[in-house]
Amino acid sequence: MLVVGENISIVLKVVADAVKERNAEPIVKMAKEQKEAGADYVDLNIGPATKNGEEIMQWLVKSIQSEVDIPLALDTKNISAIEAGLEVHKGCAMINSVTGDKDKLDVLMPMAKKYNSKIVGIALTEKGIPPDVDSRVEIAMDIVNSALEYGVPMEDLYLDPIVLPVAVLQEQVKNCIDALKVFKELKEMMGLPDDPKTIVGLSNVSQSSPKELKSLLNRTYLVILLSNGLDSAIVDPLDRELMNTVKTFDILTNKILYAHSYLE
Amino acid sequence: MLVVGENISIVLKVVADAVKERNAEPIVKMAKEQKEAGADYVDLNIGPATKNGEEIMQWLVKSIQSEVDIPLALDTKNISAIEAGLEVHKGCAMINSVTGDKDKLDVLMPMAKKYNSKIVGIALTEKGIPPDVDSRVEIAMDIVNSALEYGVPMEDLYLDPIVLPVAVLQEQVKNCIDALKVFKELKEMMGLPDDPKTIVGLSNVSQSSPKELKSLLNRTYLVILLSNGLDSAIVDPLDRELMNTVKTFDILTNKILYAHSYLE
Repeated sequence: MLVVGENISIVLKVVADAVKERNAEPIVKMAKEQKEAGADYVDLNIGPATKNGEEIMQWLVKSIQSEVDIPLALDTKNISAIEAGLEVHKGCAMINSVTGDKDKLDVLMPMAKKYNSKIVGIALTEKGIPPDVDSRVEIAMDIVNSALEYGVPMEDLYLDPIVLPVAVLQEQVKNCIDALKVFKELKEMMGLPDDPKTIVGLSNVSQSSPKELKSLLNRTYLVILLSNGLDSAIVDPLDRELMNTVKTFDILTNKILYAHSYLE
Repeated sequence: MLVVGENISIVLKVVADAVKERNAEPIVKMAKEQKEAGADYVDLNIGPATKNGEEIMQWLVKSIQSEVDIPLALDTKNISAIEAGLEVHKGCAMINSVTGDKDKLDVLMPMAKKYNSKIVGIALTEKGIPPDVDSRVEIAMDIVNSALEYGVPMEDLYLDPIVLPVAVLQEQVKNCIDALKVFKELKEMMGLPDDPKTIVGLSNVSQSSPKELKSLLNRTYLVILLSNGLDSAIVDPLDRELMNTVKTFDILTNKILYAHSYLE
């Protein structure tokens, strides 16, 4: 599984303060510890970033990549901040994310192509959360068609079936599993050259649940999704139990060789 | 998920001593605590039971059911001990288990029918452990055909794809998942009136692994199997983390209604 570390998010005070003061140290530290814990990508969630978005994203990308050798997921609704980040990013970045709205797809897909970036396509539109599995699949098909139109290879497209909080929208949590199953059939359904990849923002499932339930909900849901073919997840890589569960999944499905010491 | 509690097994000294002395107290206690922890059935594994098997099984069934209201899984290679147990069992017992050998099927399937008992059919023959997925499926089909021949309803047949220790036979652990997937297609493949059920002896997966890994291996494997449609498992219901994982699976797949207190 491709692990995207979620911890650098503007909703955290330590990150908001560091960005405000352009103090790279705490952010570099967070990137480093996520990489050491097993993250393959580190997400940079700077929120709407309506003010100075371009400059903030470039500062973050350069500050982190000058100290830590890791690719980044650029996570903001400010599209020109994403492009600014891609301009200075070393290696294969990830655009997180594009919704299924045509005006967004027509800008971000060509951008992913131009910068050889991965791109997350989320089964959501401006109209809101799709009410059922079929509408998620329709949006995913629009996203796949846009990737085909602009020449983004399927291996760089990550479809997100949208994880919602079980405490608030329990039925949608089941719908997400079922949508994922259909996403894994899109290659055959649409006659695609390859399978598009799949990704989720895992921690959403336990949002609004009591703290003591969060890790259990997250890791159980992750195994359900991995069992249904999930390729990647945006997670807290510092959750040791979660990362141990991912390793255990790989052991039990014969992806990595068993040794008594496999957790070490 | 139908939970079968595995703890009353003759391999444990406390059980072996209690049986030897015909001292029901520790065994009744084990049945009671497994039921309270969430077991739907309690397994009585008395081993080969070549000596006094019939009398031991009847004594166990009567001792437990006079104190605890729970159905039992009769688990021994001694077929006449199984029948002796069925004769005195109240409610719907479970025969655990019959292999895919014709001589065994021709005795145990009619017995399951006669006593309206559930029966576990294990994808194994006297020749040993099937080397691959296809041979597991072939044996399962023999078992299904025998159930059809003797009029055992599919809802009472539990097919077991055989869990083996990941520390010893890692590839077989993956094969078991793949065999389970095919078992879930037997209804369509064989034109059956209903789906046969599926079951595993879960703890085998962590046999020979270090103690600190066992629960993690067991519960991760269980979620993988449940995600692939598993109906039942023989487990240690006193493993709180395992049972919490089962509840969490039911929450995330919308089988039981979420409440912040769902673990209590």
